Amino acid sequence: MADTIIKIDLSSSPYENEQVHNRWHPDIPMAAMVKPGDDFIVECHDWTGGQIHDDDSAADVRDVDLTQVHFLSGPVGVEGAEPGDLLVVDILDIGTFEESQWGFNGFFSKRNGGGFLTEHFPEAQKSIWEFNGMFTKSRHIPGVEFAGMIHPGLIGCLPSQAMLEEWNVREKALYDSEPERVPALATLPYADTAHMGKLSGEAKARAAAEGARTVPPREHGGNCDIKDLSRGAKIYFPVYVKGAGLSVGDLHFSQGDGEITFCGAIEMAGWIHLRVNLIKDGMAKYAIKNPIFKPSPITPKYDDYLIFEGISVDEGGKQHYLDVHVAYRQAVLNAIEYLKKFGYSGAQAYSLLGCAPVQGHISGVVDIPNACATLWLPTDIFEFDVKPNADGPEPMVQAGVDLPLAKDE
Amino acid sequence: MADTIIKIDLSSSPYENEQVHNRWHPDIPMAAMVKPGDDFIVECHDWTGGQIHDDDSAADVRDVDLTQVHFLSGPVGVEGAEPGDLLVVDILDIGTFEESQWGFNGFFSKRNGGGFLTEHFPEAQKSIWEFNGMFTKSRHIPGVEFAGMIHPGLIGCLPSQAMLEEWNVREKALYDSEPERVPALATLPYADTAHMGKLSGEAKARAAAEGARTVPPREHGGNCDIKDLSRGAKIYFPVYVKGAGLSVGDLHFSQGDGEITFCGAIEMAGWIHLRVNLIKDGMAKYAIKNPIFKPSPITPKYDDYLIFEGISVDEGGKQHYLDVHVAYRQAVLNAIEYLKKFGYSGAQAYSLLGCAPVQGHISGVVDIPNACATLWLPTDIFEFDVKPNADGPEPMVQAGVDLPLAKDE
Amino acid sequence: MADTIIKIDLSSSPYENEQVHNRWHPDIPMAAMVKPGDDFIVECHDWTGGQIHDDDSAADVRDVDLTQVHFLSGPVGVEGAEPGDLLVVDILDIGTFEESQWGFNGFFSKRNGGGFLTEHFPEAQKSIWEFNGMFTKSRHIPGVEFAGMIHPGLIGCLPSQAMLEEWNVREKALYDSEPERVPALATLPYADTAHMGKLSGEAKARAAAEGARTVPPREHGGNCDIKDLSRGAKIYFPVYVKGAGLSVGDLHFSQGDGEITFCGAIEMAGWIHLRVNLIKDGMAKYAIKNPIFKPSPITPKYDDYLIFEGISVDEGGKQHYLDVHVAYRQAVLNAIEYLKKFGYSGAQAYSLLGCAPVQGHISGVVDIPNACATLWLPTDIFEFDVKPNADGPEPMVQAGVDLPLAKDE
Amino acid sequence: MADTIIKIDLSSSPYENEQVHNRWHPDIPMAAMVKPGDDFIVECHDWTGGQIHDDDSAADVRDVDLTQVHFLSGPVGVEGAEPGDLLVVDILDIGTFEESQWGFNGFFSKRNGGGFLTEHFPEAQKSIWEFNGMFTKSRHIPGVEFAGMIHPGLIGCLPSQAMLEEWNVREKALYDSEPERVPALATLPYADTAHMGKLSGEAKARAAAEGARTVPPREHGGNCDIKDLSRGAKIYFPVYVKGAGLSVGDLHFSQGDGEITFCGAIEMAGWIHLRVNLIKDGMAKYAIKNPIFKPSPITPKYDDYLIFEGISVDEGGKQHYLDVHVAYRQAVLNAIEYLKKFGYSGAQAYSLLGCAPVQGHISGVVDIPNACATLWLPTDIFEFDVKPNADGPEPMVQAGVDLPLAKDE
Repeated sequence: MADTIIKIDLSSSPYENEQVHNRWHPDIPMAAMVKPGDDFIVECHDWTGGQIHDDDSAADVRDVDLTQVHFLSGPVGVEGAEPGDLLVVDILDIGTFEESQWGFNGFFSKRNGGGFLTEHFPEAQKSIWEFNGMFTKSRHIPGVEFAGMIHPGLIGCLPSQAMLEEWNVREKALYDSEPERVPALATLPYADTAHMGKLSGEAKARAAAEGARTVPPREHGGNCDIKDLSRGAKIYFPVYVKGAGLSVGDLHFSQGDGEITFCGAIEMAGWIHLRVNLIKDGMAKYAIKNPIFKPSPITPKYDDYLIFEGISVDEGGKQHYLDVHVAYRQAVLNAIEYLKKFGYSGAQAYSLLGCAPVQGHISGVVDIPNACATLWLPTDIFEFDVKPNADGPEPMVQAGVDLPLAKDE
Repeated sequence: MADTIIKIDLSSSPYENEQVHNRWHPDIPMAAMVKPGDDFIVECHDWTGGQIHDDDSAADVRDVDLTQVHFLSGPVGVEGAEPGDLLVVDILDIGTFEESQWGFNGFFSKRNGGGFLTEHFPEAQKSIWEFNGMFTKSRHIPGVEFAGMIHPGLIGCLPSQAMLEEWNVREKALYDSEPERVPALATLPYADTAHMGKLSGEAKARAAAEGARTVPPREHGGNCDIKDLSRGAKIYFPVYVKGAGLSVGDLHFSQGDGEITFCGAIEMAGWIHLRVNLIKDGMAKYAIKNPIFKPSPITPKYDDYLIFEGISVDEGGKQHYLDVHVAYRQAVLNAIEYLKKFGYSGAQAYSLLGCAPVQGHISGVVDIPNACATLWLPTDIFEFDVKPNADGPEPMVQAGVDLPLAKDE
Repeated sequence: MADTIIKIDLSSSPYENEQVHNRWHPDIPMAAMVKPGDDFIVECHDWTGGQIHDDDSAADVRDVDLTQVHFLSGPVGVEGAEPGDLLVVDILDIGTFEESQWGFNGFFSKRNGGGFLTEHFPEAQKSIWEFNGMFTKSRHIPGVEFAGMIHPGLIGCLPSQAMLEEWNVREKALYDSEPERVPALATLPYADTAHMGKLSGEAKARAAAEGARTVPPREHGGNCDIKDLSRGAKIYFPVYVKGAGLSVGDLHFSQGDGEITFCGAIEMAGWIHLRVNLIKDGMAKYAIKNPIFKPSPITPKYDDYLIFEGISVDEGGKQHYLDVHVAYRQAVLNAIEYLKKFGYSGAQAYSLLGCAPVQGHISGVVDIPNACATLWLPTDIFEFDVKPNADGPEPMVQAGVDLPLAKDE
Repeated sequence: MADTIIKIDLSSSPYENEQVHNRWHPDIPMAAMVKPGDDFIVECHDWTGGQIHDDDSAADVRDVDLTQVHFLSGPVGVEGAEPGDLLVVDILDIGTFEESQWGFNGFFSKRNGGGFLTEHFPEAQKSIWEFNGMFTKSRHIPGVEFAGMIHPGLIGCLPSQAMLEEWNVREKALYDSEPERVPALATLPYADTAHMGKLSGEAKARAAAEGARTVPPREHGGNCDIKDLSRGAKIYFPVYVKGAGLSVGDLHFSQGDGEITFCGAIEMAGWIHLRVNLIKDGMAKYAIKNPIFKPSPITPKYDDYLIFEGISVDEGGKQHYLDVHVAYRQAVLNAIEYLKKFGYSGAQAYSLLGCAPVQGHISGVVDIPNACATLWLPTDIFEFDVKPNADGPEPMVQAGVDLPLAKDE
């Protein structure tokens, strides 16, 4: 078995682990060094560092401290890596811890981050998912069991100082355009809860003050939340600093395209087995700005779908111009209304669309003024037949079970 | 063989055919009647009604009259269909005409509709695609040959008068927000070039004045340009008028998600073989607002992909808030830059991404402020190995071949 | 559209068409010539040349003259092809004739060829399949509709004189080992019903006397009945004579692995669109003895299967040594018994397994003394749920419909 | 995590473990009991119980004691299971031991069991495969790396006494038809090396004398070596004794259809995570004789294949009658000759076809006198392009590396 170069302890705080960090900054020292060709294992906290529990209350989701996220394992230094190279990463495997066979999904309160449908679901709710080998099911959402496309929600290399500054400038500009907005338009550097790995003292304070938050995906990849970047995938990452500095976290047992519930997919702690190689000067050779990747040969085959369309006319009937975000929201809302006909609550349906391997396609983006997006719901995840027929649906899901909700206080 | 209930003549104008129309209006008389359970064949002009030619000049694309599009065959009336029903449509097959074994793709001049990348490709260009059975290749884009997912870009039922009015009001409101914009924000009713099927005289004039343009997808489906709605698919359409009134056109030999080139996919004339059935009162039974569908069991298997990421920071470095449109544009631009390393021109790469069965996924839409979109490029459509390796790419495509361009006059 | 270089007339006898033949012999003159890189269309009779009719009697299947089969279109000569080359054939498309939208399946009387289960179904029976675009269903087997993997059952190049002699010698030796057997162990040359294309007079008589029958697959391919050699596939054929001489026929709308019913798949008349190229000296370069091929990117995706196992213990309980034939027969019989629980007759189930895209896998061939074979039944071809559940099956298929049977006279 | 109800110790002999057995007999006491609905983990020795080592000598393969195989974990008793029921088994996951990240493949000496191609490879050879997460590669076969379809080669329920006797009678009859044959036609009961689990004393002696060997697959499933019965599959097993008595072993990291090398697939020790349920009286309800199963939604997607044909004319040119075994052997030999053109030795190619997820299809079994079988070689397992082209193959594999061979002594 490959060496585990970063270990974590689920029973202690991630702040106590020097091989963990929660901000992006080029000064964070390498947590471990490997060579091109090496494969190795990295253990990861769940993205919140243990703030969410396997219980039937959503109070923890409501009260979560989002300034702490995401706890990443790394950075892993790769000998010989230089700015301009491509770091080729094979995800050889991902797994759970024997003592932690569960994951969580939820939507935040609108006051604290919200989610894709926060106008419709403004208060915190949570669902817990039990893992059974490669399958998962939830006591809060009956009638479904499916195999996960297990993947890291967040993975990428350290930015250079110049890139970091560019991030901070452009995100601050957006934030400042509507600084009172709830939820905010962007997450800005915030030193109080920053964990900068092995950095300490003055160096840590300096870096913490300007370290980029981990929430958005950026040029280096980062929090892309791409469900297809799953075990078996091969990724080509841009390198910006000497040694590359690969960090990873936010493991998901399963997720739908868009990670619409924000909190988020089926979130879990676990380990990831990686192999690294270099393509020297690969960024220029292949004109690479953002990472590119090849999907895994090992992905659950859910080939029968029910597909919902949405267009860029919003819930109030207002016409938007080629807005795929609005169109996808309509497709998601259409799917939720459909699922409610089978007995699900809206919250159950919303959570399910965030967790199951649904696809979200950008189907049309030129037919002014409407964008068209489609949500692909795999029918085989249901224990009953979810397809339409002439008789109409029968409620297949027993009443009385729902996601716990924690009211804003 | 099923009856061909609507025939067309490629050598004459679609305006001469009473079973064709190019606006949406509830008063358009049924072109033909069928019964639930029937299967039948409908012939279709290409979406422009023959304005584009199989030659090596893009003048026709530059000079296209877009007020004429799309020429649809129908409406087909279904006995017993009533508002509130679902019309279940099986696409049993789609084919080309023996005498018309080619299709076209292009981008319009920015002055006349543009396309997804009109800022980067502001002038009209065209590529011609030759059909070889189930495969296609282009003399303007060497090095690729692929099987099409043949599909109708546009299919749906007639709107009710109330729905039509809602469309006109909301689109006018958007148009009026920036009436001088080029290209315009929306296409408004335009009587001069309206073709209202069998309507004539005063009735035609009235309907033409308010008939909705066919460009955007809407609640009824319409111009969704969903590549996966291909032959073999089963679609559930909302019914708004007595008899349903199903119309279809804008056949595509192949298209990538997004139909980014606007003109459009690989556009073709051809025929479509349909079967219809009803789910009475199905809209309420299943809470259906937009059409839903099941994909075909018969689709080209391109399972090896190279996947490009894009985030919602635009070409100028400006940060946008969860804007999937911007993110997908970045993914597309990243793919174009990559393909240029193999010898393609930008226009060739752009056209190829509009034509080949690429996927566009909404990968992340909650990680503020960046949306993340992915473009999935099937590697098997290339006659050479398009994947990265340590040696870097060699130009695989001979120079000197490119898409014809027609300068604005 | 590519040229149709061989045309047929369904209303006249294939014996009247000089571009058709029903024996393999190197002296048969080329029916048409093409060049490497050309694509072209060839029309084909059904394998029996029209002996079976679209009706509800199996008398035609019982009385079929099997000495006439298979009527092949060709040979097509390829300029520059020489013995030792590989002929690369792209199957660009296959289609039906507008006036012939049906196919047939059946099992012969045991006295006249029988079938895989002739001991269980010793008398002639027939099912007729209606084509609806890319789908088919049968009035004799309710409850199923599926998309076909349309393919040629028989395709290959002319043998050399030496190869022909080798075939004749080895098959005669087998035949002679049990000359009285019914059905016979092999089909030997038979001049009376031989059709040798353009050959006439003495030359024809000579060739007819030794021309190999078309029933078995051989080194050149021939009657392989491989369902996966479908439209979109690319095949590499050994070349044995100058000009290659490619002939094709026995088109199938759909077939299960094994073509167990012998008569056969869903048999049809139709056309095939081919493209040819050469790999000079390819047989030696790649050590090719039998054809090799790449499957199509366009095949129906039936990914949910119910899989039946069989071992090489026969119906009488006798132990055979690693006999895959016996093992597959048990798997087939197991599937038939299963399907009978849903209301099908044995003959319906047998015919369905011959027609639908079932897979037959050689699962284990070393675990002495039992071979293990598996039959993969795609569940999505059924209009009802065919999977096991705790309640047990309900008869889903109405009684009173069955395959016509024609008793031996 | 589910309970591990059977544990093993790789450093001690399986004979010391009472929860292990190596013969089939109804008297073997249950090793552990579970309830319907339970999921649990069972650890397994490799099939030889540790006789083969991770080294570069094939002496262990040559000297293996095959009377000891297969060491199975179980039987697991299921409360309430009775003869006639179906035991529904979900394979929730399968994994390797952290301290045992390797597997082996080999062919036995012809004197000691041989293999599918024992006439061509009569002496013992071995390849060792290293596991890297979900992927594997071998130091003895360069140029390939692939994801395994991990599965149990052997799984099934205890036979009844009547069934056991039927097995013994029919296999003895075959054995006796050629008792001097090497390798033997069948493996008969052999008490000396029998391990009967918790049985001891007289009871053990009695059972050992008649306990069926585990080599062949039989009605209960057993040693089917079906690669598709992989993690994620759902299997329906016939129950013959009270409590069912499910045993499992012979785990494979990967295998090709046929398990042609006999020793065997990529053989490994590991654990399997199962869930059990009952369909009462399911054998009669569904007419089940042999197990049936549904494949996993999680299987490596190797969708691009090079397909080799074989017919039932043997290596000496002799014609066999519809013999799929002979036909598949020809397809395998054709593939081996092809791979040798890329630099592989015959032994490397043979071993690879036994290990990689190749498919073996029974393509035609009625076209007298030739059966046609196809071997499907996935092209994506190779690190180079293995497809034919006009230039011919270049040796891609360095010389000097090969499988160790141990000469018969």
